[in-house]
Amino acid sequence: MKGTVGELGEFGLIDRLTSRLTTTPAVRLGPGDDAAVVAAPDRRVVASTDLLLEGRHFRRDWSTAYDVGRKSAAQNLADIAAMGAVPTALLLGLVVPAQLPVTWAAELMDGIRDEAQVAGAAVVGGDVVRGDSITVAITALGDLRGHEPVTRSGAHPGDIVAYTGWLGWSAAGHAVLSRGFRSPRAFVEAHRRPEPPYHAGPAAAGLGATAMTDVSDGLVADLGHIAQASTVRIDLRSGLVDIPSQMSDIGQAVGIDPLQWVFTGGEDHAIVATFPPDVKLPARWKVIGEVLGPSAQPQVTVDGAPWTGDGGWDHFGDAET
Amino acid sequence: MKGTVGELGEFGLIDRLTSRLTTTPAVRLGPGDDAAVVAAPDRRVVASTDLLLEGRHFRRDWSTAYDVGRKSAAQNLADIAAMGAVPTALLLGLVVPAQLPVTWAAELMDGIRDEAQVAGAAVVGGDVVRGDSITVAITALGDLRGHEPVTRSGAHPGDIVAYTGWLGWSAAGHAVLSRGFRSPRAFVEAHRRPEPPYHAGPAAAGLGATAMTDVSDGLVADLGHIAQASTVRIDLRSGLVDIPSQMSDIGQAVGIDPLQWVFTGGEDHAIVATFPPDVKLPARWKVIGEVLGPSAQPQVTVDGAPWTGDGGWDHFGDAET
Repeated sequence: MKGTVGELGEFGLIDRLTSRLTTTPAVRLGPGDDAAVVAAPDRRVVASTDLLLEGRHFRRDWSTAYDVGRKSAAQNLADIAAMGAVPTALLLGLVVPAQLPVTWAAELMDGIRDEAQVAGAAVVGGDVVRGDSITVAITALGDLRGHEPVTRSGAHPGDIVAYTGWLGWSAAGHAVLSRGFRSPRAFVEAHRRPEPPYHAGPAAAGLGATAMTDVSDGLVADLGHIAQASTVRIDLRSGLVDIPSQMSDIGQAVGIDPLQWVFTGGEDHAIVATFPPDVKLPARWKVIGEVLGPSAQPQVTVDGAPWTGDGGWDHFGDAET
Repeated sequence: MKGTVGELGEFGLIDRLTSRLTTTPAVRLGPGDDAAVVAAPDRRVVASTDLLLEGRHFRRDWSTAYDVGRKSAAQNLADIAAMGAVPTALLLGLVVPAQLPVTWAAELMDGIRDEAQVAGAAVVGGDVVRGDSITVAITALGDLRGHEPVTRSGAHPGDIVAYTGWLGWSAAGHAVLSRGFRSPRAFVEAHRRPEPPYHAGPAAAGLGATAMTDVSDGLVADLGHIAQASTVRIDLRSGLVDIPSQMSDIGQAVGIDPLQWVFTGGEDHAIVATFPPDVKLPARWKVIGEVLGPSAQPQVTVDGAPWTGDGGWDHFGDAET
């Protein structure tokens, strides 16, 4: 087996990568032609693109290729779910240095494939090019199954705010890793490999969600996009947030209030949505606030006051940013 | 106005870029949410991704940002047309160095937008990330309008081979540019900005094309993919190829047989297809060969013999590769 991408060549690498893929009934034509063909039964297709760069979005010494693949795919698939759609397909653009081991690229592909499978989707095509540093460009497609897309602009005063999935786990894991530790394992793994609640997106659309997004930049920041687009104020209640005891322990150890992770940590791809107040939410949704306004100054507040970052939540007197 | 991408910041840049975009009726939800929503009336969506890297696919000293945008979009939109589909939407992933002038990125966006418009499509979303070198990742979507996708695998013995669009113009332009010249203008412009015959793809599907592709790697190479996928031999007749007199002149000047450009030059994104022999082709299609076989050794021949590259076509006794 040829060891590096440069030795194998681009066509060889494409063969090696596509040979690892699986398919679904939605894939009408998979990789190998000028373009792929994917079922879009709703007569509308939902589409989103994201880029991940080595050094900026992942580190090869912190994450395996497989985990980078899982994470890259998760990030895109979560965007589809957050519109209320069911993910159907991924396309992969991959820039690889000539010295990159073929095994790294193959394991990346395995991670992307497996995460797509978790979400019910398949990798249908892509492009591979040699370049100086690893870049992963993923486009995800999805189907609305008759629901209207749930945008960021539909939140109404009186709506409740609820989320499902994980909040702050990736940030806590990052704090652990950046101090040179490898445990607690649950948080390190959450940083390496998020688990977005894909099914919850379409389910929320079915429950009448008025606005929805996935938490990629942090809860306050991402709800800020909803507040802005809906011209409302969103108030979160810190007392409604459950902090797992292990997360509190890490916070104490590293001198950071875990609420900081919950409110500003990104990358877990929890799904947060606003719902009419009379909605009956399934058990795994957690209500954490309400929609106020309409507001001339759309913003997210916590317990009625602007979120002031770590300073405002410096319970340990030793917080870092 | 802030001069560089680094000064403007990513959110500022995204605002600047999306403010330049136009829309179409197929765009149900454009940029600014977790994902875009695009009409897919056929209930299937055609999708393709390509990457372009500075230095490898374009040079800032040879092409303007606007031309790089046109070219990047054209490359992807041609893939959609080559399936017999009508392009509907583009998504753009853009890696930009901090020192890049904002105007460069804005002009790139203009080029992508304008090329999309030529094809009837619109830019519906994307991602912008800072990195060391410019990378353009484009995903194109399209609609089949009731036609079956025309793949590479349907060519039958007895079919005719025909193309429409431009062949070898970009390669001739590249030969001119790489020798430090800027004229003849028509060829230099063809290199900077291809003009794929988008409409011809769906039209060919309607005419019963049995296999189709766009010429991105060169006619012989791309027809080779059809020969391989269809397990046939394809024989081209050099006597059927029209060489414009100006192309002959350049060939003479630089010591390259222009047939070399026509048979191996990529990037013009002509559309080449196989059709049943009784097809009535519109005037702008040019028949250049036929499908033989089935063949255990699928390949493309020229005048019955394997294509041997420049050596075999060294009419000037001074050919370069």
